[in-house]
Formats: sequence, structure tokens, C-alpha cells
Amino acid sequence: MTTPTMNQLGIVRRSIERADRAAVERLQRLGSATVHEAMGRVGLLKPYMRPIWPDAQVAGTAVTVLLHPGDNWMMHVAAEQIQPGDIVVAAITAECTDGYFGDLLATSFMARGAKALVIDAGVRDVRILKEMGFPVWSRAISAKGTIKATLGSVNIPVICAGALVNPGDVIVADDDGVAVVPAADAVRVAAVAQQREDLEADKRAKLAGGVLGLDMYGMREPLAKAGLRYID
Amino acid sequence: MTTPTMNQLGIVRRSIERADRAAVERLQRLGSATVHEAMGRVGLLKPYMRPIWPDAQVAGTAVTVLLHPGDNWMMHVAAEQIQPGDIVVAAITAECTDGYFGDLLATSFMARGAKALVIDAGVRDVRILKEMGFPVWSRAISAKGTIKATLGSVNIPVICAGALVNPGDVIVADDDGVAVVPAADAVRVAAVAQQREDLEADKRAKLAGGVLGLDMYGMREPLAKAGLRYID
Amino acid sequence: MTTPTMNQLGIVRRSIERADRAAVERLQRLGSATVHEAMGRVGLLKPYMRPIWPDAQVAGTAVTVLLHPGDNWMMHVAAEQIQPGDIVVAAITAECTDGYFGDLLATSFMARGAKALVIDAGVRDVRILKEMGFPVWSRAISAKGTIKATLGSVNIPVICAGALVNPGDVIVADDDGVAVVPAADAVRVAAVAQQREDLEADKRAKLAGGVLGLDMYGMREPLAKAGLRYID
Amino acid sequence: MTTPTMNQLGIVRRSIERADRAAVERLQRLGSATVHEAMGRVGLLKPYMRPIWPDAQVAGTAVTVLLHPGDNWMMHVAAEQIQPGDIVVAAITAECTDGYFGDLLATSFMARGAKALVIDAGVRDVRILKEMGFPVWSRAISAKGTIKATLGSVNIPVICAGALVNPGDVIVADDDGVAVVPAADAVRVAAVAQQREDLEADKRAKLAGGVLGLDMYGMREPLAKAGLRYID
Amino acid sequence: MTTPTMNQLGIVRRSIERADRAAVERLQRLGSATVHEAMGRVGLLKPYMRPIWPDAQVAGTAVTVLLHPGDNWMMHVAAEQIQPGDIVVAAITAECTDGYFGDLLATSFMARGAKALVIDAGVRDVRILKEMGFPVWSRAISAKGTIKATLGSVNIPVICAGALVNPGDVIVADDDGVAVVPAADAVRVAAVAQQREDLEADKRAKLAGGVLGLDMYGMREPLAKAGLRYID
Amino acid sequence: MTTPTMNQLGIVRRSIERADRAAVERLQRLGSATVHEAMGRVGLLKPYMRPIWPDAQVAGTAVTVLLHPGDNWMMHVAAEQIQPGDIVVAAITAECTDGYFGDLLATSFMARGAKALVIDAGVRDVRILKEMGFPVWSRAISAKGTIKATLGSVNIPVICAGALVNPGDVIVADDDGVAVVPAADAVRVAAVAQQREDLEADKRAKLAGGVLGLDMYGMREPLAKAGLRYID
Repeated sequence: MTTPTMNQLGIVRRSIERADRAAVERLQRLGSATVHEAMGRVGLLKPYMRPIWPDAQVAGTAVTVLLHPGDNWMMHVAAEQIQPGDIVVAAITAECTDGYFGDLLATSFMARGAKALVIDAGVRDVRILKEMGFPVWSRAISAKGTIKATLGSVNIPVICAGALVNPGDVIVADDDGVAVVPAADAVRVAAVAQQREDLEADKRAKLAGGVLGLDMYGMREPLAKAGLRYID
Repeated sequence: MTTPTMNQLGIVRRSIERADRAAVERLQRLGSATVHEAMGRVGLLKPYMRPIWPDAQVAGTAVTVLLHPGDNWMMHVAAEQIQPGDIVVAAITAECTDGYFGDLLATSFMARGAKALVIDAGVRDVRILKEMGFPVWSRAISAKGTIKATLGSVNIPVICAGALVNPGDVIVADDDGVAVVPAADAVRVAAVAQQREDLEADKRAKLAGGVLGLDMYGMREPLAKAGLRYID
Repeated sequence: MTTPTMNQLGIVRRSIERADRAAVERLQRLGSATVHEAMGRVGLLKPYMRPIWPDAQVAGTAVTVLLHPGDNWMMHVAAEQIQPGDIVVAAITAECTDGYFGDLLATSFMARGAKALVIDAGVRDVRILKEMGFPVWSRAISAKGTIKATLGSVNIPVICAGALVNPGDVIVADDDGVAVVPAADAVRVAAVAQQREDLEADKRAKLAGGVLGLDMYGMREPLAKAGLRYID
Repeated sequence: MTTPTMNQLGIVRRSIERADRAAVERLQRLGSATVHEAMGRVGLLKPYMRPIWPDAQVAGTAVTVLLHPGDNWMMHVAAEQIQPGDIVVAAITAECTDGYFGDLLATSFMARGAKALVIDAGVRDVRILKEMGFPVWSRAISAKGTIKATLGSVNIPVICAGALVNPGDVIVADDDGVAVVPAADAVRVAAVAQQREDLEADKRAKLAGGVLGLDMYGMREPLAKAGLRYID
Repeated sequence: MTTPTMNQLGIVRRSIERADRAAVERLQRLGSATVHEAMGRVGLLKPYMRPIWPDAQVAGTAVTVLLHPGDNWMMHVAAEQIQPGDIVVAAITAECTDGYFGDLLATSFMARGAKALVIDAGVRDVRILKEMGFPVWSRAISAKGTIKATLGSVNIPVICAGALVNPGDVIVADDDGVAVVPAADAVRVAAVAQQREDLEADKRAKLAGGVLGLDMYGMREPLAKAGLRYID
Repeated sequence: MTTPTMNQLGIVRRSIERADRAAVERLQRLGSATVHEAMGRVGLLKPYMRPIWPDAQVAGTAVTVLLHPGDNWMMHVAAEQIQPGDIVVAAITAECTDGYFGDLLATSFMARGAKALVIDAGVRDVRILKEMGFPVWSRAISAKGTIKATLGSVNIPVICAGALVNPGDVIVADDDGVAVVPAADAVRVAAVAQQREDLEADKRAKLAGGVLGLDMYGMREPLAKAGLRYID
């Protein structure tokens, strides 16, 4: 699992180990913020990754694809590797905002069972994608098209928006951003995240009733120790 | 009222002078663009400050908080200083996009009577914040959490997104951005802004009827003097 | 048709040749992505140009205006040159995010028959513009106002967001971005774009039925020739 | 002279009209700031275009090249069109920071008589380019290489860093940035710029002697009229 | 000392209280990093402020000027207020990269005794400024000129690159950035900073001799307590 | 080798496998551009990573460190793991420009035998670092200091400026940027890169003699096939 080198370009891995399906479903309900906290505040893609339409919340297993700037040839290769419940994660070898993905590819991805696309570049046909209900997280929206000329790879480890994604990892995406959970950690992270979530309902009720976080979390003493001074 | 120095870190000012409540209400109806014009085209936070959901228009009195990158401890200290009608204005000592604020803090802020949050950093749980109807203007949305380790200050003068905000100042925020009116100027600015607004209805009717700004504003002569030439 | 020099500042061209009206209407239905493809993947403004409200799709003939930073005087001069079906394209001589345009100018532009504004700067009163149904593509939203002090020009060639726009050219704008079609090419581009569009319905049906792009486009052989290897 | 469309991709214009050689030499001595002022404060590429090594000041006639992201094939086509005294101006059809140009191409360009490269993308081998004394203005420095797969064009009008450059135009570049003077205006702009420059020596002597600009330019009265107030 | 409002535009304060001269000299030797640490890690302008030539290290008392985008009229007004040892701090009411300052103004500023310019915009003639030995910290370098049309103010509190600067405050600038010390704090900050500096020589010698910071600062125990684990 | 999760925070790996020393030396002579080409045009950190002083060219084996925003505690932990010939590669869990590293840490790193620092954040004391001859590649220069409060990790896989770096990998850095070669590939990449380099001397001589790349690379036929047209 290293930086792709010569012998990893032009490769398609057909058999990948996908994270536990039940854990994926639990992670989807919990959302990216809670999941990232449960992992120890790591595992997020950079915050420039934004949904192209609001209110979607999904989780799925990663099919990864490495593309070259302005070239979406490998998207079609990736389509064949999609299984129901997958999320395609597309990384580019250089910064690019071109529109790699539109309604035709979305039609194909949906036919294969894909739940979403996460791409460190641009997409287009965004109004139609919204009507189709296909969620995308991207760094840009751009009408600019791409060519089909250069080989990349499918299902190799990729770095997408600053995060390492291995094929089969869990992708959790919502309005707050995109988190990646290593496949081997999915069950445990889901459990920890659920515990976190369970505690929140009680806290929310207290805070809504006017209890201050200062008291609920017992912060007054450590704040005073750290030297906080109140003046009038 | 200077740049915070040693003796201003770790301080909470409990008694602040809030701007005139009636003036705040008038300023809320007028909006950020009109208010900024009435002040002589100053007093705006930088335009990277965007609402996390559209169509909110609020005004309130500033409770300020100075935070460190990746650390939201003082948000809980600020919560206690909120009075009904306040807007919390959060500045960070360095550029940061972390998600300092989510649905739990929003629950607490709303229980205290806060009308909004303006933060020169990121927030999260944005879908829930929208459902709660709690408006936020921020530079980013990010699932990334923060720690609680370092003292900042509450109700000291802060520089938020390029604007100086003193506690008690009026914050006017809508889809166009965020304006700050010094507390002492609130009544006068509200009056000037209202005059501006009153003149606009008549102008709007004329322009809708096909009268050109060139004629309505008497621009043809100064344009000709400045050397404007019409060619065919 | 060159970079504006001394003798092109302070000029208003009254008679411009507008692109064929029927072609403009066909281009509007096709959208920016298809139009840009039909031109050979050129003719797009940079992707930082975003609509201020979603779901608008327009095309019109360009009335161009060159403005100075923080100065919208020439917008009023431009208003007089608008004919029904035009889209105003505003370029600035330096990068600027100020709010050059609000509800009053929009009222005037609509009264003249303008279909939209494309501006490489900021606009304000965005909530009202949305209510008025006047679409704008801009680089920023900002409450910051402008002055009226310096001459620019109207209906000279301008460079807006990285694209050359001549007065009379066709502007095609939607959620994916903004494309410009030279007036002389409008009929031909509309025809090519329509052909492209006609082919897509069939492709979409096949992809929805589970046919892979790999097979539909005959990509398997060229991919193998390029060296793509499948591993398990 | 329009936005490149279908019939302008894959074209090399061999015969271009270069600006007056003597005017180019005069413009070189005057520098980008003075030249841009003499044109009426227009004609500059965006300020993100920076020299890769300091203190170079050149002017030359433009050989233009339009490239695709990550593809420098047309640089070799452009090399053949270079005549002594030319400056190659490279535009890209989308934003890209790849290193399109290194010491081998520089060797070839120098052998053809090129004076410099202006490129709205990245370059590499910058230490060697500095040793070779070949000046480059670029938006980035990047070790990232490019491929040779897609046709662009040579000696068509291009938009480079926000400015329209026609083949044969004068490029004036120094530490302050890059200016473009239309070939037809070169003689006149050189004359106006020289007049400007001639006046500066006298002004500089006065200012060095302690005379204030307020007095030298007669600003006190207009400032007072505009309402400037002095307080103690 | 508030955000500039109506009654603060078009104002020149002639009598300002400058920080203690001896303290300024001590702060100059200490540099921006040490000074900022001595203030409790506050007081820095944003890191996009960069020197236009390397190796300068200066401190001086602030003469402030508030300018409008693309307009440097008030620079000439500011020149008259300069006293030997001052540093001019220029803020702009909106983001702008234009070249507000060149060799003529530098000649005038130097004749008045100015030590440097700090400007949240662009400058030009940078090669000549380097030859003149006049240091500038700016956000940009740009050949683009400005006009002289709109009033700003001199010696009012300004926000420059995210920091509040009052006239008379100490500005400390070097290759690491720009710090501002409130005039009233200058003597105390200089003393604290000097203590910090005095301790560094000893630490440097130890570290050069191979002692680890882990041992010198006694970090091993707190790291272990925090849970650091060493594995092989 | 995955995204760091809970069980990888607060960890220091003491025994890492460093790349072949002889290969590192060969890679150093070849530079980042040639090495990246030899790897198949992958393996580069993003081009915003720039040297703080020019003309350095180094290669070494990576000691990695993962830091939190505004906190450089683990830099001291990393110092102990440095062996002669190492380059420290520092990644941050969120975007940050603070000055994590100055002359004291550089003194310690040099005493341990470190050849350079590569950090996806800011550094300070840059004038002294230049005098010391310690090269740094960073995303920013900032006087802003950091605290020592939160655990990170040393010698785990990190993502630095968009590239995955495993401890022991080869880092090659020069004025063009920073490349990373997986330890296991170092010998092979050095051989391929050397072959590339060997071919360049001959090419350079030909190009200097006026031979065109069009002829030397046999491009005329493929260009004609692709449809390139020459016009007069």
C-alpha cells in the first residue's frame, strides 16, 4: 500500500475486500462528523470537498480510480468494477477542476448500483444529477469536458483531497464533508461512534433546558486553573 | 481598545454595553448592504463569510470570543455571557477551517437567546442547524472537530474576517454578508440607512417604468465632461 | 478586436451585430456543457463564475461593459444599450469582489429586456434578485458598494473570467457555468451541439439498461493496446 | 480575432506581423509599469504571473501557443516559429500548474533566438534556467511533467493570465509583471511612455529634496474641496 | 478607537503619540517571531504579507493610512505626516492587489525619514526599491497603477492584513513577517522579549551539542503521561 | 499502512527500514523532476511546497511526523528518531500556516544529522536558517508560534501536501519541488532516472545546435496525422 509507482499505473484490481455491510449502514446514520470523532479526529477529506446539492447523507464502500488531469477515460473502466453499495472515489494526479462526470456516467454508475461519487476535481450536468438524486462531493463544478487518452488505475490506494483511500474502505459523506474509515476498522468505529451518538441525546436535552456546557462538562475548575479571569 | 496583548488573554468581560435595542431592530430590517452604505461604505466583514443556509436576515448585539486554531473551549465560556438578542462573533488567532460549532452548542446558544453565530472558521452539523433555524455565517463548513485545551477571551475587541468588532456592537447579517455598526453609532446609522431606504422605493418604480439611471441620476452631463464618446 | 488601449477607454458602441436569434434559442436549450463540447472544448469562462441562485438556464446576446475596481458608473451607461434578449457581460480591469449590482440596477436591466448578468466581480441584494427571478453569474457575493467616478467602456471586446467576449456574441449560462459562442459561429455551433444532444438520448437508455461505456464506446481494445492490465 | 473555435484548433500560423523592432527596444527600457500607464492603465497580465528569477527586464514580439492541461506537445511546434527577438506566450485551456517547460526546451528556444517565455502554467529546471539566463514568467513552479498527446495551436490570439495576446504583439516583462502592447500601438505607446519617463527624473529630484507630492502635484486644493479635514 | 465610520473618513490626525524610541530599537533587534511570542502569541499580520526583497529587519512607529481600492491619493497626504523612524502602514477598504507605491513615492517617503512601508495591497518598481534599500512588506507585486480620486484617512486606527494598528504603535518586520506592538506596551514587551532571547543562546548551545529538546525541556514525563507509546 | 486511526495516534516507531543509501545519493544528483518522470509521472508533493531559500538540492530518508494545527510538540519527539541522512517530513491534521520550526529546532535537527525539513505548514527564523544552510520546503513562512499540548505520532505513514510518505522512503527536493520514492523502489527508480538523464546530454547538444524537437523526436508525422495544419 504505497504511493503508486510505475508498476501500479494501468492496473485494474477486480477483487477487493469491502468493509462489513452492516457497519457501513450504521456509519451512514451517524454522519461524517461523528465518525471522524470516533476515529480520533482523523480520516477527513479536505473541507473544499462540497456536495453539489444539499441534504444527502450516504455511506458506501470505495471503488477507487486514479485519473490524469483533463482525462476521464478510467471512469468507464471503474464503472465495470462497481457493485451495489459502492461509492466511487476519484483522485487526480494533479490539481484540476474540469468536469469529469455528467449525467451519462451517472446513469451508468446508478445502473451498476453506485450510491455516490467523491471526486477531487469538477463535475457537470449538476441540475440533472440533482433531479436524478445522484449525490456527488467535488472540489468544483465545471462545464469543461475531458478527453479519453491516458491510462490511470482502478482500485489502487489513492490520495483524494488529502486523505488516503484504499479500495473497500468506508466512505461517509454528508453536508459536513467526507470521512473515510479503513475497512478493517469499520465495525469498531461504528460501535464507538454509536456510543458517542447515544450520549448526545441526553446532553442536547440538558443544554436545551438551559444547563451550560461549563457545568455539564465540569469546565469551571480546569478553566480557573488555566488562569481564566472574570472582570466586570 | 487595542490589539489583544498578554493582559487580555484569558479574560471574560461580564458587563458590556449593548447597542440600543430599537436601533438594532431597525438595522435588521435594512440589511447589510444598506447599513454599510449608510456608514460611508465601511464596516463589512470580508465577503468570504457566507451563510450556511439561505434567506436568513438578522441583527443583534455582539458577544465576542477569541479562539485558538482547532480549540473551541471558549465557546462554552461565551455561552454563559449570551443574553437574548445577542449574536456571537468568533475570531481565531490564525486561519483555521475546523468545525468549531455544531448542533449541541447551537442548542445551548439558542437556550440562552442567541440569534446567530458569526465565525471566521468552520462549523458542522449544518443540516441540523438549518432544521433548527439557527443562522450561521462562516468561512467554511467542516466535519473536523476541535479540542478544549487553550484559553482565549470573551468580550474583548476582536478582528473577525478583517473587521474590528467590539462587544456590544451591532451585527447585521444576511445573504449579502455581515456588517458591524459600532454601538455608539447605531441610532444614527439606523436613521441614515432608513433615509436611504426610503428613497429607493421611488427610484425602483421609475426604473421599472423604463426611466434610465442615466437620466434619473443626471449622469449624462458628468459622463460627457469626463470624455465619454458614443460611436456607431 | 484587440486589447483595449487608450483609444478604447471612454467609448460606447451603439450599433452592434447580434447573433442570430433562433440560434440563441437553440443554444439555450442545449446548455453550457454541450455547447462548449460542440465548439471543440473551448469558450468557457473560468469555473469560479457561479450562479447566485440555482436552476436558471439562459442564453442571450452580449452587451459588454468594462469597469474599474470599485466603480460601477458604466453599468448605467450599459443599461441604455440593452435590447430585449441581451445578457450584460461585465469585466473589471483588476480583480475585485465588490457588489457592483443590486436590485435597483436589476429593475432597470429587466425593464430594458435583459435576460441575465455575467460579472467577473461581486453582486448584492441576492435574496431580492432571486425573488425577482433575475439570474446572475458572478465570482462573489458582497454587500460592499461601489462609487461612480471613472470612465470605462461599453460594447468593446472584453475579457471576462478568462474568456474573450465580443459584443453580440452568444452567452449560454446554467448551473454548470458560462459559455461564449462567437456571433458568427452561433448557427453552426447550435447545429453541431444539437447533433451531439440527439445522440445522447440513445446512449442514456443503453447505459440505464446496464450496458457499459466500455462496450458502448468500444473502449476495451484501445485500453488493452494502451497496456491496461486486470489483476485479481 | 475571436475566441478560438473549432476551426482554430490544430492550426499553426507561419506568417505573423511583428511589432516595430525599434519600438520594442524602447519599450524594454521603460518597463511594464510605465508602459501600462502609457496605455491608459490597461494591458497587464494578472499579478500572479511572477518571474522565476529576479532582475530580468525584457521585451519582445509574441509567438503565441495554446496548450491543453498537462500536455506540452505544441511547445515543440511553437519552437519552429520562433524568430530572434520573440517571446513565447503560452496559454492553457484550463487552469494547470504542471511543469510544461524545462532546460531542454529552453535550450531549443534560445537556439532559435527567443528572449523569454511567458506561461500561464508551471515550469521546472528553474535552477538551470537561471544559470542559462533564460527568463520565464509563470504562475507556478512544478516538477510535474507533461505528455504529448493533444493538438493545440500556434500563433492564434490567446488569453494568457487574463490578457488577450495576438501574435506579433509586444510583451514587456520585468519584476513588476507582464504587459502586452498591441503591435499596431507599439510606436505610439513607446512615445507616450517615454514622455512619462522623461518627466519622472525631475519629479524624483524634487521629492528627494523634500518637496511633498501634495505641493508638487497641487493636491492641497482638490483635497480640501473633497472635504479632507486635519485635526490635532 | 472603533471601526472607522462616517466621521472618520476624510480625516488626517497630525499629532499622534509615538511609542518609546528606545523600545523600538530594542524590538528591531529581536525580530517579529520573538516579539510576537513575548506578547502571548498575538499581534501578527497575516502570513501572506511578504517582504519584496530578503534580509531586511526593521522596526518603527506606525503612520497609518486607509485607502480605497485602486486609489493611492492618501499616500501623498500620509507622506507629510511621516517623521524620521516611522513606518507607513497602509490598509485598503477592500481586497486589492494594485501597485499603490513605486520609486517616486519611495523617494518622498525616504526624504521624510520613513524606514519602511507595510501595505495590504501591491507595490511596483520593486527592482528599484531594492536598489534604493527601501523595504516593503506587501500582499502582492503588481505593475498596475492607481488613480487619485477618493478620500481616505491618515492616522486613524486601521485593520491591516487582519491586525489592528493604531497610529504610533510599533511595527516589527523581517523575513518572518510583521508584528504590531501597541505603543503603551512597547517597553514591557521589549523587556519580556529580551528575556526570551537571552535564554535562547544557552539553549542553542545545548542543542548544538546534541542534547535533545525532550531532555532539555523535560518533556519525557508529560509525553508519557499524555499516553505516548514507543514501539519497535 | 492505512489512514491513521485511533490506534496510530500517540505512537513513535523507533525501528524503520531506510532506503538504500547509495540509491539515495544517486537520486539526489538527479533531482525531483527527473525522479518523478522515472516513476511514471507520480510521487510529487503539491507545487505549493516551496524552498525557503534557493539552490538547495537534497535527498534523504524520511522520518515522518504527524502534528496537530498550532502544536509542534512532536517535533521534539521526532528529533530523537533522526539518523544522519534523514529528512523530516511533517504533516498536519488540518491546514495550518503557523511557524512550527525555527533556528532552535534546526540546531537540534542538524546535530542529529538531518539534511532538511519538508513541512506542510509554516516555518520561521528563515534568515537564520539560510545562514545555517539548513534547507526547508514549506507551504508558508510565518512568525506565528505554536504550543506543545497534543500528541501526534512519529514514523507512521503520513500524507504530506497530497503525497503518501512512509518512514524510510526517499525524499528528493530542489527548486522544482519535492518527490517521494518508496523505499523498496529506490534502487530501480535511481537506475531508470539515470538512464533518462544520460539521454538528455545528447539531446541538449542537438537542440543547442539548432535541431528542432519536431525532428529530433520525430513529431512531424504524428502531428500531421492528428490533423495539424500550417497556414500562412
